[in-house]
Amino acid sequence: MLIVKKFGGSSVADKERVYNVANRILEDYKKGNDVVVVLSAQGKTTDQLIAKAKEINPNPSRREMDMLLTTGEQISVALMAMALEKLGVPAVSLNAFQVAMHTTSVYSNARIKRIDTERITTELENKKIVIITGFQGVNKFDDYTTLGRGGSDTTAVALAAALHADACEIYTDVEGVYTADPRVVPNARKLEEISYDEMLELATLGAKVLHNRSVELAKKYNVQLVVLSSLVVADGTIVKEETKVEKMLVSGVAADKNTTRIAVMGVKDEPGIAFKLFSLLAKNNINVDIILQSIGRDGTKDISFTVASDFAAEAKQIIEANLARLSGEKVTVEDNVAKVSVVGAGMQTNAGVAATMFEALYDAGINIKMISTSEIKITVLIDEKDVNEATQAVHEAFKLARK
Amino acid sequence: MLIVKKFGGSSVADKERVYNVANRILEDYKKGNDVVVVLSAQGKTTDQLIAKAKEINPNPSRREMDMLLTTGEQISVALMAMALEKLGVPAVSLNAFQVAMHTTSVYSNARIKRIDTERITTELENKKIVIITGFQGVNKFDDYTTLGRGGSDTTAVALAAALHADACEIYTDVEGVYTADPRVVPNARKLEEISYDEMLELATLGAKVLHNRSVELAKKYNVQLVVLSSLVVADGTIVKEETKVEKMLVSGVAADKNTTRIAVMGVKDEPGIAFKLFSLLAKNNINVDIILQSIGRDGTKDISFTVASDFAAEAKQIIEANLARLSGEKVTVEDNVAKVSVVGAGMQTNAGVAATMFEALYDAGINIKMISTSEIKITVLIDEKDVNEATQAVHEAFKLARK
Repeated sequence: MLIVKKFGGSSVADKERVYNVANRILEDYKKGNDVVVVLSAQGKTTDQLIAKAKEINPNPSRREMDMLLTTGEQISVALMAMALEKLGVPAVSLNAFQVAMHTTSVYSNARIKRIDTERITTELENKKIVIITGFQGVNKFDDYTTLGRGGSDTTAVALAAALHADACEIYTDVEGVYTADPRVVPNARKLEEISYDEMLELATLGAKVLHNRSVELAKKYNVQLVVLSSLVVADGTIVKEETKVEKMLVSGVAADKNTTRIAVMGVKDEPGIAFKLFSLLAKNNINVDIILQSIGRDGTKDISFTVASDFAAEAKQIIEANLARLSGEKVTVEDNVAKVSVVGAGMQTNAGVAATMFEALYDAGINIKMISTSEIKITVLIDEKDVNEATQAVHEAFKLARK
Repeated sequence: MLIVKKFGGSSVADKERVYNVANRILEDYKKGNDVVVVLSAQGKTTDQLIAKAKEINPNPSRREMDMLLTTGEQISVALMAMALEKLGVPAVSLNAFQVAMHTTSVYSNARIKRIDTERITTELENKKIVIITGFQGVNKFDDYTTLGRGGSDTTAVALAAALHADACEIYTDVEGVYTADPRVVPNARKLEEISYDEMLELATLGAKVLHNRSVELAKKYNVQLVVLSSLVVADGTIVKEETKVEKMLVSGVAADKNTTRIAVMGVKDEPGIAFKLFSLLAKNNINVDIILQSIGRDGTKDISFTVASDFAAEAKQIIEANLARLSGEKVTVEDNVAKVSVVGAGMQTNAGVAATMFEALYDAGINIKMISTSEIKITVLIDEKDVNEATQAVHEAFKLARK
């Protein structure tokens, strides 16, 4: 069996953790499996490297930033190979050049295009455990690139797809995917399985277990993932195409405080304004989430939408610079808001989900500011102060708790 | 003009020093020169990485050690490129894979075989300052290698040779090559020029300015070097094939405390013993320096020799394990010894040099334990406690002091 195992930065932060991971790798190897390991940079290494860079140049080129940051994973893989050597098993570390991990040219946010598997296959045939740098690739200019947030998950999934691995295990600091954040909802239940689509909605909505790009890739190449804990030995959550026949109505409740509402007030009620506004934001790579258009005073309209909070200032600036062209009066920004969502493949065929959710929020006295729905998701925007109470109320309403 | 400039780890240890170097690079670039820069790892980075490795595995494979250590130079070059970007000049950092810097397969102690210059040339044509990782290469297995001590000097010389550079400048923390260590001999004089051969003798003998492998390479490809300070703007020392017609008798005095005398006592006086002993040591990669054979008691011989102190324990162990085969009685190790040498191309044609040196030591009351000579060098082994006094006395005797 060929197993790809991915461990995050906190899982390899110090000597004890490195050996903890090395021993888990060893278990699989000793059973006769071929093992490919993907690692992130140790603990706070990436943050420290970014700080080093910013000290020299607050605005370095992304090309050089990637050249700098890729050293983090290379340190991790070399140390892990040394730990495995100490445990008496042959191991070899490989970076993106050695693999070769071909990506698009975009620095800081590249996408994997193709992986050469020859070197990996040769090392596996020589019965070596192969330790590969996550998060990084090489572009057509022969330069390092990085894959952006959650990039090591993506590396693992891409390797599992390219190598036709039998399993792809993503080790994190939680034990799996839960029906809600266990810190907010103490009796939240760990899901045995979840579909790619549900996981995608959850990932996008702030359940920080798997990055959505890695889930997209897993879905595309039908790579079955397991999310499990690097610290506790326990079954995790399987992410795959089709979950059990008896689909659950709702798989989980996700909350996301990293959202800001922006409103463009008093725009003329004429065609094309919304198009102009959102194409302007898209051109600047700002992703818009929930959109609401309402009637303003004197025959004007208000257009409001949410963005990830990191992009709020930039979005405001862009709109203000184009306010005349958009025929708007002013822009307002509201940061103390949060999204709460229920996700479930079952809701496609059940009309009562939205009603149950809204009732639960009404009973808890929580005001809904905006609503957005997809085939397998209902999201509401509420005051940030209400987010935990709302999550608990909705989790309760759908009877998601552990028995 | 194409200039290769090499800066050591202490020259790029922090932000201020990085900018100091960046500004010196900039000066050359602004004059219209093509500039290639070779950097070592910042300050104590390499030591820290080694400590990290030893914590995980006290005896890691050299392959993984090189994988780990090569991150150090990559961090340096990325940060330098960022500093130059901040100063408004285009720069690009390249590692050994990107260059490509082909070496022999030996990890930790590889030799450069061939450098592809295409990428560098293209970047220079695009008017970029090219910043290259020193000390590292890639072997035929597509693995990182490192070049051993002083490796970055060698990288710079090899690049200067491959690119047919007009100048190769080695920046260090001293202002050039001196007639003796200025900390020991305060009125030591900075040499304007020195020949490759003299520099080689001095490098080997512990004048830590240039590593001998880089000087050998410079001699082989006739690359004229300049050794100068990264902190002080002043003329350095030129290292080249032929120095001025009026050759100085002696160029300098070098001292080396990193030496240990080992004696194999009471070996049989028969042919082949010395051969067996020294081929045994050579097979174990232990370099022997001065050799002395003397008559022992009862028709036996004593063979004594010096090695770099790091290898003394290993040498002793090897000899003891083979003592019977070598027909020896016992092995003694004496660590409190030092070498003092005078080096000078002029001594080839002047018989009085040895006499002058021995007289100076005699006048200072210093006992000579062993003597070794080459065409351009005379070395004596003395007590370590006498080393500074001996250096001063010999420096004085040859009238090497600043006027």
